[in-house]
Amino acid sequence: MKLASRLDHIAPFQVMAILAKARALEAAGRDIIHLEVGEPDFATPAPIVAAGQRALAEGHTFYTAAEGLIELRMALAQWYRQRYDVAVSPERIIVTTGASSALQLALGLLVEPGSEVLLADPTYPCNRHFVSLFGGTPVALPVGPDTRYQPSAAQVATAWCERTVALMLASPGNPTGTLLPSDTLAELVTLCREKGGALIVDEIYHGLTYGVDAETALRQADDAFVINSFSKYFQMTGWRLGWLVVPEGWQEPAIRLAQNLFLCPPAPAQQAALAAFEPATLAILEERRAEFARRRDFLLSALPALGWKLPLVPEGAFYLYADVSAVTDDSFAYCQRALDEVGVAITPGVDFGEYGAKRHVRVAYTTGVARLAEAVERLATLRG
Amino acid sequence: MKLASRLDHIAPFQVMAILAKARALEAAGRDIIHLEVGEPDFATPAPIVAAGQRALAEGHTFYTAAEGLIELRMALAQWYRQRYDVAVSPERIIVTTGASSALQLALGLLVEPGSEVLLADPTYPCNRHFVSLFGGTPVALPVGPDTRYQPSAAQVATAWCERTVALMLASPGNPTGTLLPSDTLAELVTLCREKGGALIVDEIYHGLTYGVDAETALRQADDAFVINSFSKYFQMTGWRLGWLVVPEGWQEPAIRLAQNLFLCPPAPAQQAALAAFEPATLAILEERRAEFARRRDFLLSALPALGWKLPLVPEGAFYLYADVSAVTDDSFAYCQRALDEVGVAITPGVDFGEYGAKRHVRVAYTTGVARLAEAVERLATLRG
Repeated sequence: MKLASRLDHIAPFQVMAILAKARALEAAGRDIIHLEVGEPDFATPAPIVAAGQRALAEGHTFYTAAEGLIELRMALAQWYRQRYDVAVSPERIIVTTGASSALQLALGLLVEPGSEVLLADPTYPCNRHFVSLFGGTPVALPVGPDTRYQPSAAQVATAWCERTVALMLASPGNPTGTLLPSDTLAELVTLCREKGGALIVDEIYHGLTYGVDAETALRQADDAFVINSFSKYFQMTGWRLGWLVVPEGWQEPAIRLAQNLFLCPPAPAQQAALAAFEPATLAILEERRAEFARRRDFLLSALPALGWKLPLVPEGAFYLYADVSAVTDDSFAYCQRALDEVGVAITPGVDFGEYGAKRHVRVAYTTGVARLAEAVERLATLRG
Repeated sequence: MKLASRLDHIAPFQVMAILAKARALEAAGRDIIHLEVGEPDFATPAPIVAAGQRALAEGHTFYTAAEGLIELRMALAQWYRQRYDVAVSPERIIVTTGASSALQLALGLLVEPGSEVLLADPTYPCNRHFVSLFGGTPVALPVGPDTRYQPSAAQVATAWCERTVALMLASPGNPTGTLLPSDTLAELVTLCREKGGALIVDEIYHGLTYGVDAETALRQADDAFVINSFSKYFQMTGWRLGWLVVPEGWQEPAIRLAQNLFLCPPAPAQQAALAAFEPATLAILEERRAEFARRRDFLLSALPALGWKLPLVPEGAFYLYADVSAVTDDSFAYCQRALDEVGVAITPGVDFGEYGAKRHVRVAYTTGVARLAEAVERLATLRG
């Protein structure tokens, strides 16, 4: 028996190896500060948990429609009206098993063997793997702080070829936390339409922006594929629940593909998520958002003392993407040393692409300020 | 924007269209007897639900490892020892988001563009779509009652070619409910090994067999890929939880692919499933299994009066696959009439393949004997 060759192109997340090593060190008695994993440190808000428990008591343990509960799709449509003042029909919203399934669904609808999909480098590593899964080729667009780590219209226009079927964006991005500027989005929307390609926008960190609210791409592009999730802002990571907004006319094939790939998203999670938009839940989430903002601001002020360069203030997510070239020429080895020598777990740039990867690390501020301060103190002892 | 051509090859489940129409008729006041959907009519047993509620109260709402909780993998290994007297190391068990993800994972590990995978016709429709998803070609092996609707070794040997990478089996099968005879399995195991191909066995209806216990293919083939699920016997359909047993040496790529495709299976479902093997749960499940047996036996005695042919007694699942050629030459039209005229929802053979599809329907006995009896009475008025 022979392993399929697609596995040659799917690298393991280094962050998972670091997490495993961190846990092994902890099991051996070491105190490790976790700044590596892309998951809020807050458990799911109590009103959502209570709704999940109630739904279980009421016997909501059966399959749902492949596209999700109509009540939840209507609640999401209402959320777009209320939060973004944008009209999205519930029929265009497909509830999925986390953003992972939403991403697979969008690319399964668009990518042919031989297709090319343009995406930023650095970016979330699974994006390029999902493109490869369907026989497509991910084409990396190197991005830096000059464009807030987002592709420019000129860059996309140059990279676009006859095999290109889609451009993928993320706002806020992972690992950089930056928003796509509104005027850049406008240019990219126009460009995708002119080229006859699809625009896919990952908005899973919406809600987790500081001092500014993110706009959905749907405001400018009703024909975009928008991926979102209950994982990050709503802090429902383990429940596995997300959604995909498809352009008008794409519902039928999207639901047909979802039916075959997933049957349906988890029913208890869907029932629980109905409580996600209640005022009591949103009050909790907004408090936590303020806490993330405090953490970001603390790190932005503290990390430069380590010699780390943070060329801009990222508006969102819970990541800082730091240039550590002043302290190392190999960020992967540096991350290993940080874990081994001072018990601080951070993620090397190599998890997110190739461009500048050895010069960068990602810090996830998914622990409180006191621990962040201790992490900075410990990392200071690594210098030189 | 152009829809990917894979969607041309993915037919909608007719059963879903029938379900939707049945619900519309119900909304209009009609009484519909549902014999179409492949889902137990029992809610998840109370001890599993209680475990899920407790886990939520305790804050188990975070990501787990991609391969699932080690406690659950150990419980499954213990289940193989206890129920089948077979040793399976927990390391070989990957917990998945339902059998759908287990199936995608197994085929993602094995199928290259251009590969061929052999499978029975009729069979579960998603099987061939997952093969196509990865650029492979599903090759149908027409099966009938003479081989208990299972492929024979001679048939597999004839169909095997240099592009063949795997044989997929299901025992009990869907839509036929039949077990693979142990001696046939032995021949097929030998054949797959000789050919250097993989054997994939769907065992998701294990536990739901009547008067006989199914043997796992792992007893004869430690190198098989075995798919199973908490959906059917454990009645956790909506929770989306299954598992894949991989051969020794395949764990690392399996976990790597699972990480990228799914991140992890739902955490609340995994916590709940820890209670699936408790004596109190098993007592409930065994009572329900006896109830399914009563339903099967009732239909086996009642359906022949309709002119439906049931050439064998299927050992398991909750399906009968009936030859209705004495009453129609188009089972699809017959299913439409059954729903429209007498309010009985059944699934046409076309959902499961091409071979004999127009002569067959699938009946799911996922409702009580009184309703089954009424369904038979109603269908009797359709004759002639």
